[in-house]
Amino acid sequence: MIWINGALLPADKARIDPRDRGFTLGDGLFETLAALDGQPLDLAAHLERMARASTVLDLPLPVEATEVATAIAQVLEANGFSKGRASLRLTLSRGVGSRGLLLPLDPKPVLVITAGAFPQIPPHLDAATVPIRRNEGSPLSRIKSLNYLDNVLAQQQAQGAGAQEALMLNNQGRIAGFARGNLFALIGETWVTPPLADGVLDGITRAKILKKAGKAGFKVSENSLDRADIELFRGLFISNSLLGCVPMARLDGREMRLDPLLIDQISGLLID
Amino acid sequence: MIWINGALLPADKARIDPRDRGFTLGDGLFETLAALDGQPLDLAAHLERMARASTVLDLPLPVEATEVATAIAQVLEANGFSKGRASLRLTLSRGVGSRGLLLPLDPKPVLVITAGAFPQIPPHLDAATVPIRRNEGSPLSRIKSLNYLDNVLAQQQAQGAGAQEALMLNNQGRIAGFARGNLFALIGETWVTPPLADGVLDGITRAKILKKAGKAGFKVSENSLDRADIELFRGLFISNSLLGCVPMARLDGREMRLDPLLIDQISGLLID
Repeated sequence: MIWINGALLPADKARIDPRDRGFTLGDGLFETLAALDGQPLDLAAHLERMARASTVLDLPLPVEATEVATAIAQVLEANGFSKGRASLRLTLSRGVGSRGLLLPLDPKPVLVITAGAFPQIPPHLDAATVPIRRNEGSPLSRIKSLNYLDNVLAQQQAQGAGAQEALMLNNQGRIAGFARGNLFALIGETWVTPPLADGVLDGITRAKILKKAGKAGFKVSENSLDRADIELFRGLFISNSLLGCVPMARLDGREMRLDPLLIDQISGLLID
Repeated sequence: MIWINGALLPADKARIDPRDRGFTLGDGLFETLAALDGQPLDLAAHLERMARASTVLDLPLPVEATEVATAIAQVLEANGFSKGRASLRLTLSRGVGSRGLLLPLDPKPVLVITAGAFPQIPPHLDAATVPIRRNEGSPLSRIKSLNYLDNVLAQQQAQGAGAQEALMLNNQGRIAGFARGNLFALIGETWVTPPLADGVLDGITRAKILKKAGKAGFKVSENSLDRADIELFRGLFISNSLLGCVPMARLDGREMRLDPLLIDQISGLLID
């Protein structure tokens, strides 16, 4: 069952217009988040990020934020996720508009909410640095827009290199993150994550770690990382809203040897 | 009336699945082309480009190229474009797939063909250089993928600057082209267009000009252009499959003063 602009429909009845700009131009946004026992996790943070991104695109939500919470509860229940873990996706598109690139004067945004099984979280991953670059010169590199094909191609390139996750550089050769989430690298005693200006997604889990680390006694900092800095990495993990924190066992074949206790401690930060 | 994978349906009955990766990730391709008296123009060149791009994305067409020609004729007729000019859009999406970025093992691609009125071609345009950059480090900058939101934002930025067309630089600060098409600048006696490596769309009209210019006595070359080179521009035009060649009257407020005869001569190259 899929929720579209207020209607809850069977998946094979739910319909996007082929002229929808989300389909024709990738003109829209999305959020993926976890749910537990019929309740979305960190919904307020995800809706705040969507609101910030919708300002960048000048694309308002077609419903109030409070309605989104009700809709999510409906979707979870209708798909048998009232108990246990599930994953959620909110997709916001600009809807049908006239031909051409300019924004329609009378936009009819479409919000789609789907629920699915919670993914299996692997204990660790192998990563490979891929050729495709993130576009630090576009605000889209910092928001979750429907333009996600660079990440798709990057993930395929990683798989081709025998890895499960893609490390992406930007066009200046700086490390921007992973195809599926943000990057934290342990250098000396500090967890370093690249700044948003380097073409980095403004991740919910990333922000949580940056906010809470100090109190928990972790040193974290936002600093640009060059490819040469990889030699200094004592550990490496990916953060995202579904995976949480997952350490990399290897990067480009080189072992990362991260103390599992450290990851347990950092994952502890994510529990409210 | 819209054509989808072999069916010709009224627009309000034609349906894209909300889980289609074209909608959720921008995972697909498109082509826009002109039609005259019920026949598409340069169809072979557009299908060849789509085939090259589908290799980049590992996304095959769900039908034979010969079927596309028949489908286009049907769409044109069904929409009352058997006579006169029309515009066509082919949209190829990877279709519904499982969650996540990795390509589905059993893809079900979707091809959509729509027809619309031919746009009014202005005699000239004003252009503005916009802040948003093209991603020279991604193959998507060279193909017409469904990730077109950078161009949408660029076009909006140009409009905000009082212009109708956006000149886009890449992350190295080199000129990549316009939001809606390729760029040709007259420097001395040579028409210069940036090379594909600079994050440039592999345009059908661009290729035609490069191929035919020599015979017609025009000097053309593919060369990188820096922002400083703008001072040397004696003229500037955009090329694309619908607009043809349209000169810029101004770039960032500076007059371009292009001899209209020159544009007539170059436009002449595009007539087979």
